[in-house]
Amino acid sequence: MDFSALVTSVGTSFLIFVVLLLLYVWLASKQGNQVVYYPNRLLKGKGKDGYVSKTVNPFTWMAEAWRASEDEIIAAAGLDAAVYLTFVGTALAIMVVSSAVCLPVLLPLSATDRNNQIERQEALAKNKTASSYDDFDNLAMGNIQQKSNRLWGFVVAAYFVSFVTYFILWKTYKRVLNLRAREQASLEAKPEQFVILVQDIPLVPPGKTRKEQVDSFFRRLHPDTFDRSLIICDISQANKVWVEIEGYRKKLARAEFVSEESKTRPTHKTGFLGLMGKSVDSIDFYNEKIKDLMVKLNTKQKVALTEKQAGAAFIIFNSRLAAASAAQVVHSQLTDTWTVIPAPEPRQVLWKNLTIPFYQRMIRANTVYIIVFLTVIFYMIPITFVSAFTTLDELRKLLPFLKWVVDKKALKSILEAYLPQLALILFLAFLPVILMILSKAEGIASESQAVRAASGKYFYFIVFNVFLGVTLGGTLFQSLKQIQKEPSKIVNILGTSLPKTATFFISFVALKIFVGYGLEISRLVPLVVYHIKRRFLCKTEAELREAWAPGGFGYATRVPNDMLVMTIALCYAVLAPMIIPFAILYFAVGWLVLRNQALNVYVPSYESYGRMWPHIQIRIIAALILSQLTMIGYFSVKEFVYSFLLIPLPVASLLFAYLCKKRFYTSFCVTSLEVACKDVKEVPSLSSIAEAFTPPCLHLEDKFDDPEGFEDARSTVSSRASSMVTS
Amino acid sequence: MDFSALVTSVGTSFLIFVVLLLLYVWLASKQGNQVVYYPNRLLKGKGKDGYVSKTVNPFTWMAEAWRASEDEIIAAAGLDAAVYLTFVGTALAIMVVSSAVCLPVLLPLSATDRNNQIERQEALAKNKTASSYDDFDNLAMGNIQQKSNRLWGFVVAAYFVSFVTYFILWKTYKRVLNLRAREQASLEAKPEQFVILVQDIPLVPPGKTRKEQVDSFFRRLHPDTFDRSLIICDISQANKVWVEIEGYRKKLARAEFVSEESKTRPTHKTGFLGLMGKSVDSIDFYNEKIKDLMVKLNTKQKVALTEKQAGAAFIIFNSRLAAASAAQVVHSQLTDTWTVIPAPEPRQVLWKNLTIPFYQRMIRANTVYIIVFLTVIFYMIPITFVSAFTTLDELRKLLPFLKWVVDKKALKSILEAYLPQLALILFLAFLPVILMILSKAEGIASESQAVRAASGKYFYFIVFNVFLGVTLGGTLFQSLKQIQKEPSKIVNILGTSLPKTATFFISFVALKIFVGYGLEISRLVPLVVYHIKRRFLCKTEAELREAWAPGGFGYATRVPNDMLVMTIALCYAVLAPMIIPFAILYFAVGWLVLRNQALNVYVPSYESYGRMWPHIQIRIIAALILSQLTMIGYFSVKEFVYSFLLIPLPVASLLFAYLCKKRFYTSFCVTSLEVACKDVKEVPSLSSIAEAFTPPCLHLEDKFDDPEGFEDARSTVSSRASSMVTS
Repeated sequence: MDFSALVTSVGTSFLIFVVLLLLYVWLASKQGNQVVYYPNRLLKGKGKDGYVSKTVNPFTWMAEAWRASEDEIIAAAGLDAAVYLTFVGTALAIMVVSSAVCLPVLLPLSATDRNNQIERQEALAKNKTASSYDDFDNLAMGNIQQKSNRLWGFVVAAYFVSFVTYFILWKTYKRVLNLRAREQASLEAKPEQFVILVQDIPLVPPGKTRKEQVDSFFRRLHPDTFDRSLIICDISQANKVWVEIEGYRKKLARAEFVSEESKTRPTHKTGFLGLMGKSVDSIDFYNEKIKDLMVKLNTKQKVALTEKQAGAAFIIFNSRLAAASAAQVVHSQLTDTWTVIPAPEPRQVLWKNLTIPFYQRMIRANTVYIIVFLTVIFYMIPITFVSAFTTLDELRKLLPFLKWVVDKKALKSILEAYLPQLALILFLAFLPVILMILSKAEGIASESQAVRAASGKYFYFIVFNVFLGVTLGGTLFQSLKQIQKEPSKIVNILGTSLPKTATFFISFVALKIFVGYGLEISRLVPLVVYHIKRRFLCKTEAELREAWAPGGFGYATRVPNDMLVMTIALCYAVLAPMIIPFAILYFAVGWLVLRNQALNVYVPSYESYGRMWPHIQIRIIAALILSQLTMIGYFSVKEFVYSFLLIPLPVASLLFAYLCKKRFYTSFCVTSLEVACKDVKEVPSLSSIAEAFTPPCLHLEDKFDDPEGFEDARSTVSSRASSMVTS
Repeated sequence: MDFSALVTSVGTSFLIFVVLLLLYVWLASKQGNQVVYYPNRLLKGKGKDGYVSKTVNPFTWMAEAWRASEDEIIAAAGLDAAVYLTFVGTALAIMVVSSAVCLPVLLPLSATDRNNQIERQEALAKNKTASSYDDFDNLAMGNIQQKSNRLWGFVVAAYFVSFVTYFILWKTYKRVLNLRAREQASLEAKPEQFVILVQDIPLVPPGKTRKEQVDSFFRRLHPDTFDRSLIICDISQANKVWVEIEGYRKKLARAEFVSEESKTRPTHKTGFLGLMGKSVDSIDFYNEKIKDLMVKLNTKQKVALTEKQAGAAFIIFNSRLAAASAAQVVHSQLTDTWTVIPAPEPRQVLWKNLTIPFYQRMIRANTVYIIVFLTVIFYMIPITFVSAFTTLDELRKLLPFLKWVVDKKALKSILEAYLPQLALILFLAFLPVILMILSKAEGIASESQAVRAASGKYFYFIVFNVFLGVTLGGTLFQSLKQIQKEPSKIVNILGTSLPKTATFFISFVALKIFVGYGLEISRLVPLVVYHIKRRFLCKTEAELREAWAPGGFGYATRVPNDMLVMTIALCYAVLAPMIIPFAILYFAVGWLVLRNQALNVYVPSYESYGRMWPHIQIRIIAALILSQLTMIGYFSVKEFVYSFLLIPLPVASLLFAYLCKKRFYTSFCVTSLEVACKDVKEVPSLSSIAEAFTPPCLHLEDKFDDPEGFEDARSTVSSRASSMVTS
């Protein structure tokens, strides 16, 4: 990609950004769109008034986002969002401080040297096809001559960038740790702070019930602090019925709404897709269905609670301190039984995974790792094919045996135009979903952990395939002919080609800044979807709310994408410093836009108290190590005698990662006693904790009239909650 | 080594064994030697009567050792000795069961084939120097022809040996775990079960003392169970004075003894080595010295307790359960401060190491690992030299540039006779001491853990240098010429040579059985040392007792040596099954002799409740994996098409190790609540626990008359113990 193409690409992206920003200001000011642009505020009950006047000025939202304090962010979108924004801010800080040395020192050093020119002349003198270069290429390390003393400047810059990263990451880790501790030690105690999850309970001894077994075990080990146990049971059947009932409830609400609006009772056909079968009165039909299913649900609830108890339980303690301590202690002599972990937040419990036995969890996790590993590795192949098909004629010259494919015109145009791109797009679109399904299949107990696992997998995928794929793939295909002739020059060719992909990545980052964040702030897609749904599909208030209610930030894809930009920025910061201004712009615009989204739009569906920070931090270090290795390789291409001076850098990174892990990491996995011992305003009642840790399909439905002979089941079911209250 | 040499070597060893056994029976029956042969019984106060009559029959000791129950062993020599004997028994069981398939199946398969003969004939036909072979070599896998179907038998045997090992190790692990749990849950509570060790306490906040800081921290986190803290201080100076005092005390006792015996007051000179200077009355002089030093000691004690408090403390809890739980929990938000571990037994605390800060411990450990790694690797070089010098003339032919060394007769004979062997012997003799010093330098808190660390290092050393060194070194030097001529045949030559070192290892094991255990049971060296000391050096009762009192088993060298035999046995069990009977004999004789030593001789200086078992178990697995890899290699030398069928074996071993670790290992590091919650007959008094966890040099000396103005120091010192009692 040459300079003019880069300018065109960045310019186009910027134009789109301006248009999207103006669109946002205009659209957000309309009363009817406020549910799309301010759902978080609306759901928090902050009303709609005042928005219109605020958004007359297109910079109002920026000022608001800028001024918001961290506490406001936490109050609006939770600690996870605040930690995510801290990550964006940290990346921004690293880039800004790095630019202080990289731009004023490295750019003049490169610009005043003339390696590109010399190489071109040499190549021309030998009558070879000389690689062309741009003025823009002169701003990268590629323009420094072999063995030049100017390379010292780049060594210093490499050290500077590394130590800036360490310093800022260390500061941030401390800050996030304190934020997390403050939230965890907050006066407002949360139910999960009093609960631990115990899994892998051995078989019930004869003559005892599961509950007796668990109770007696924990009462013996925690005589003063054990309160009550909640046995987890296999709820799959009850859940199925419950989901069915919920479906009919929605249909009933819709039918009632229609009936009120049109003053006629709606009817529908009971056959296939409502097209065949006899016609019935919808309201009566759904009521009847729900009543039938409620009987079934009660039976299933009874069965689940009495016969399908699994080897897992939630244990409730009478203090935060006791629960925090119990969650870290080995309970049984056989350490693969009675395994304990802190209980996840009730709303993010993955109920199905709680009852998976120990070794099955191991096997599942390892199987998933292997699948992901193979996917990451073998996905290189289609990607290489994609870049190959873009220059299909080139490929035919290199690999003559492909002739029969390439020469058939019809086949060729189809291949070139549709197949690979389609496959790529489809696979990339489904990838996050597939990774999330895989992560949940590992047997993870909570939603937030599954998101972290999926995010990690996506990160590896994106770094291997996008970053390395483009860098190496581009280099290899571009210079394959040259390498064929002079195989020994492969290192040199790689060295000169590497910085050239920098222009590609600059336009890539520009696209992400302007189009990516432009779409993010303007929310065009959700807006269109909402209006379509409102016009054609939704009837009742609940349906409408569902149509505009946004989820959380979607960290599983968002974090890896930011990490990709961070990886690119770190890897090219010294080799081609012109990437830095774009990286700064990416994180600066991102910081502003995402703060706005945190304050106004996204509503978190769970809270993990910033547990994703260590995962982000370790991946920044991984990116830094990758960049340090790249630099060592590139310095030796430049035949710089003191290249070995860079070898301490990856070692320093590993040491830094180790240090952080030892000092901070454990506090992100468990709650330290120091934090757990803080005072609590009010200990949640046992019944409220038990209620929170009961899956929705086991909740009692009070609307349901008890038929005769059903007292047994109900009393069993309700004993869970009621016995908590009475004792 | 050919068959007749093997018979000679084994026969000689056996003769020595018989002589040593007879010597033992004769010497042990003498009244004056009983302190050497029955020190454990004597120290346990079981008196001397009855021994003479018992040892008339040379087989009495065997019957006694055979009949002793495990509980008797534990009572006599502690759980560590019982676990060590369990290891010997386990190794024996593995070998006995393995022999059930390896001997009756593999020996006939090998003996009836004729590969050795064919190879010899082929070589003769080609006029080459044919390698000679013995009938004995026909009993190994080397005599099976290439690609023969008989190799199936060896595949089956390889699987059999592996699964026998898994099965028996699993059973043993469970048994050791239960033994450990029984001892830990015993009614007789030990002081260390109520104590945790906390290290890396942050700086004292201004306006507080260290004690206030620690007390307030733990009182807040363990409000109901925290009892008292004992701050650990830097005792190096006080200890120096204390050691000096102890020295003078011994000299005083000796002088008093002489004075009583000879009825004259002894005198000595105060100058260099007691040869110069003015003559003084010894008793008065030592009394004076001790009195002076006591004043100094008290000052140092005061200084240590008040000014030299370190960032570490023992925390005493009021129940085993509370201490077991507290030892596993993260206390501080910054997890490299306030780090906790279960307190080691008081008698094995390495006081100097307790005050080493967190990261210094890390650095020390890693430095030690690097040193050991380099020693293990580079020690190959002198060993290869040693085997080279044994055939110096051979070497001269191969490497002509060595001529100038080898041809100088004087130089040559010195080199050949003394230097390398001397270096080897010296280094090997000092190795355990060096490894122990290195292990303690890691900053380990307890003696038993340092022993385990040293044992692990010695194991790696011995496997790499003795086992691999002899196998590969022997092969390489033996066949260097052949390899020079036909470099492609290196794999074949290795393959045929490998089983040939089997005879070397058979005679090696025989030496260890007969001479090693002969010396062990006859205790010739300690006997001679004791008698020399008694005759010429020792005067007082205390000195005499010190002369005969034995230590513990010395696991740091004993376990790695047994592991070496186990490694050899596992590696050759299938390749050359004739090793198995010798391995069986080694472990059987060892089991009997060591049980006798446990009952009668060794007095453990500490108890770690079998914590070394996981270390032994993982090293047996490592040896098994080594043997499986060797077999895979050797099967491919035999060009067996189904060699790949052996590949699942190392994978199975890794899985097995993982399974054991997950199920059992953690319970060897910490005490599970299930075990800790068992009832206690009597909780040890606070003062007795505090007394136990005070280093000897800080104990108060009541003999010392208080000079004026010294009350302060004393009260500070005694406050530790007295305040425990009063509260």
